[in-house]
Amino acid sequence: MSDAISPLASPFPALPPIAGVTPRVARAHYKSWDRCDLTYVELAEGTAVAGVFTRNVCCSSEVEIGREQVKAGVARALIVNAGNANAFTGYRGREAVEAIMAQVGAHLGCAPAQVFVSSTGVIGVPLPRDKAQAGVAAALTAPACGWEDAARTIGTTDTFPKGATATAIVGGRKVTLSAIIKGSGMIAPDMATMLGYIFTDAAVAPAFLQQMLSAAGAETFNCITVDSDTSTSDTVLAFATCKAGHTRLDSFDSPGADAFAAALHDVCRQLAHLVVRDGEGAQKFIAITVTGAVSDASARIIGLAIANSPLVKTAIAGEDANWGRVVMAVGKAGQPADRDRLSIGFGGIWAARDGQPLPDYDEAPVTAHLKGSDIAIAVDLGLGDGRATVWTCDLTHGYIAINADYRS
Amino acid sequence: MSDAISPLASPFPALPPIAGVTPRVARAHYKSWDRCDLTYVELAEGTAVAGVFTRNVCCSSEVEIGREQVKAGVARALIVNAGNANAFTGYRGREAVEAIMAQVGAHLGCAPAQVFVSSTGVIGVPLPRDKAQAGVAAALTAPACGWEDAARTIGTTDTFPKGATATAIVGGRKVTLSAIIKGSGMIAPDMATMLGYIFTDAAVAPAFLQQMLSAAGAETFNCITVDSDTSTSDTVLAFATCKAGHTRLDSFDSPGADAFAAALHDVCRQLAHLVVRDGEGAQKFIAITVTGAVSDASARIIGLAIANSPLVKTAIAGEDANWGRVVMAVGKAGQPADRDRLSIGFGGIWAARDGQPLPDYDEAPVTAHLKGSDIAIAVDLGLGDGRATVWTCDLTHGYIAINADYRS
Repeated sequence: MSDAISPLASPFPALPPIAGVTPRVARAHYKSWDRCDLTYVELAEGTAVAGVFTRNVCCSSEVEIGREQVKAGVARALIVNAGNANAFTGYRGREAVEAIMAQVGAHLGCAPAQVFVSSTGVIGVPLPRDKAQAGVAAALTAPACGWEDAARTIGTTDTFPKGATATAIVGGRKVTLSAIIKGSGMIAPDMATMLGYIFTDAAVAPAFLQQMLSAAGAETFNCITVDSDTSTSDTVLAFATCKAGHTRLDSFDSPGADAFAAALHDVCRQLAHLVVRDGEGAQKFIAITVTGAVSDASARIIGLAIANSPLVKTAIAGEDANWGRVVMAVGKAGQPADRDRLSIGFGGIWAARDGQPLPDYDEAPVTAHLKGSDIAIAVDLGLGDGRATVWTCDLTHGYIAINADYRS
Repeated sequence: MSDAISPLASPFPALPPIAGVTPRVARAHYKSWDRCDLTYVELAEGTAVAGVFTRNVCCSSEVEIGREQVKAGVARALIVNAGNANAFTGYRGREAVEAIMAQVGAHLGCAPAQVFVSSTGVIGVPLPRDKAQAGVAAALTAPACGWEDAARTIGTTDTFPKGATATAIVGGRKVTLSAIIKGSGMIAPDMATMLGYIFTDAAVAPAFLQQMLSAAGAETFNCITVDSDTSTSDTVLAFATCKAGHTRLDSFDSPGADAFAAALHDVCRQLAHLVVRDGEGAQKFIAITVTGAVSDASARIIGLAIANSPLVKTAIAGEDANWGRVVMAVGKAGQPADRDRLSIGFGGIWAARDGQPLPDYDEAPVTAHLKGSDIAIAVDLGLGDGRATVWTCDLTHGYIAINADYRS
């Protein structure tokens, strides 16, 4: 964890334990730091798993292996290494992951393929197998810890630990989701990563869990951006221990499936927002809502073009209602847009409508909105029913300081 | 012109006059500044014209009209307004452009459609028609000026005037190209723009001039990026007055066509580099060469993904040979790439080859290279023969200061 906490940080919430889930932490000494850096989560037999991964084609061995593992849908353990991303490390990196999987599998008496591994930190340095195996050995016998300890242990350049929780009633039973995530910018000071883990006692078929997680991820994790860069290791896994005692959810036809899907979506949205709130140098949390696009997909592309525009992000940092930069970003997105139907607003107030500045536009309330820490940008394209919301943070001197100045 | 000159600035070159081309400047007082802000270039009868324009769909009326005008291939005059981009101004913006075209057309006795107009500056404010017409009237009767005066007059937030020249032998005659350009970042402090104008005495058929300009632009203007943002007004026009006395170039079968095309490409490359050298906050000029891609187009997309990555750009600002960030940018480009065949180098020295850090990698000469102002990044994908070079600048506190701090 960094010393300077993000001004957008949220306190760590009260995360309930999940039946069938036991987190433990230990020191693998991946870096010369005085902290736990290896997280081990033991999962009860019968735990279903689903995952969403980075689309970066230069992904780590952990991601390559994880993509294969989730197809079987069964998990018994999770190991997270912090301090070394093990990306761009060739066969030696892969061998280290396989050694961890074998070690944990032998301890639990399960197939190594049921042991999930993630790594985050510096890239280009193979994960040191000796440190990893000693760290795992320590973690396997460590006492159980709380969620906040686990959230701190998976963190690297994060400035605060991040957790989220939600509940739903399924088949007359309360099911609980507790989740942790790490991430702040895509790299800092070397390759950082978004790693998120969601644990629930709900009983869910793996294929249906994957379906719900993919859908929620598309509208949450895939709708945030700090700096447009995509890590080689991004991973979100959902584990369902099936301990809540209700009939298993197999599809949206199962009673309670809608309630569980809504709770899962809620947790994903909370986690995604927390990553943005720890964005490198972030001073403002920005929600961009695009309506009137030709499709939801088109709205999302336009929203991300705005969210990734350095000129929009610096304007917000400067508390400047510079709607011209938003127009520019809409236009460069390459999606259907009609300049003469385009409307732009800030904080619920339209600055421009139908392609022209509003003649009676009063900038004072907009300027007041921009002085706050939570900023809303609205774009209406006037073409169709497509809509999307994306989230980002502003681009500040803090980002440059974190990413350019650390070698000086 | 700004007071603080870019550390990457080049002195204005000795630009020869072009037969049939007469530049003049005047004051339209678009802003409350003490400088000329309206440029008028008179072109001899028989001048051929070609153009390349922004792909931003929220483009200005000037761009919309210009795209139609170049189809006829004939030009008699160019007007450039600095201080007001006239973008996102609806029908009132368009009427102001049409008024200028009519006014100059009446003066020269030509069709208004042969008068080309560009505007750059603040957006969302319709070009004031009275100021424009008074400025044009003053320019029409002003004395001829030199290229450097014209280059300064089309500038807005540029920190130095930009010009380029080249010659070629065509049909035994020397032909000359003289060109000016403005641009520095895509917006600063409001919507800025890249506007470039190339003048030559060569005799070229309009369609062939367009063919050569489009090809050169694809490898020059479309291979530079300062901040990934695309202006609503970007325009490059090439005017050929046909005064050099050689047989007209109609295709690459015409004698001398290759030489002229090479000179045109050279001028376009010079102009494109000058824009990067005036990039907002730029301290380093970065050339990124991608080889071994599956196609040239794929190489260009990968090159631009690297050039647009805030994390790569801040690493270069920090003089940090952070090849991991380059790997990340390659992977996120969405193009064919094989992590285990990828090689990354700086200043002619490979840091990683075939997906792994070089065991004998010596960072010292790379660090020395990164302390210079001209940085070379090499990426080899090891897949095919596709290659491209793109150019960008680093991302510094200066960029944030220019784009976020000016309202404070």
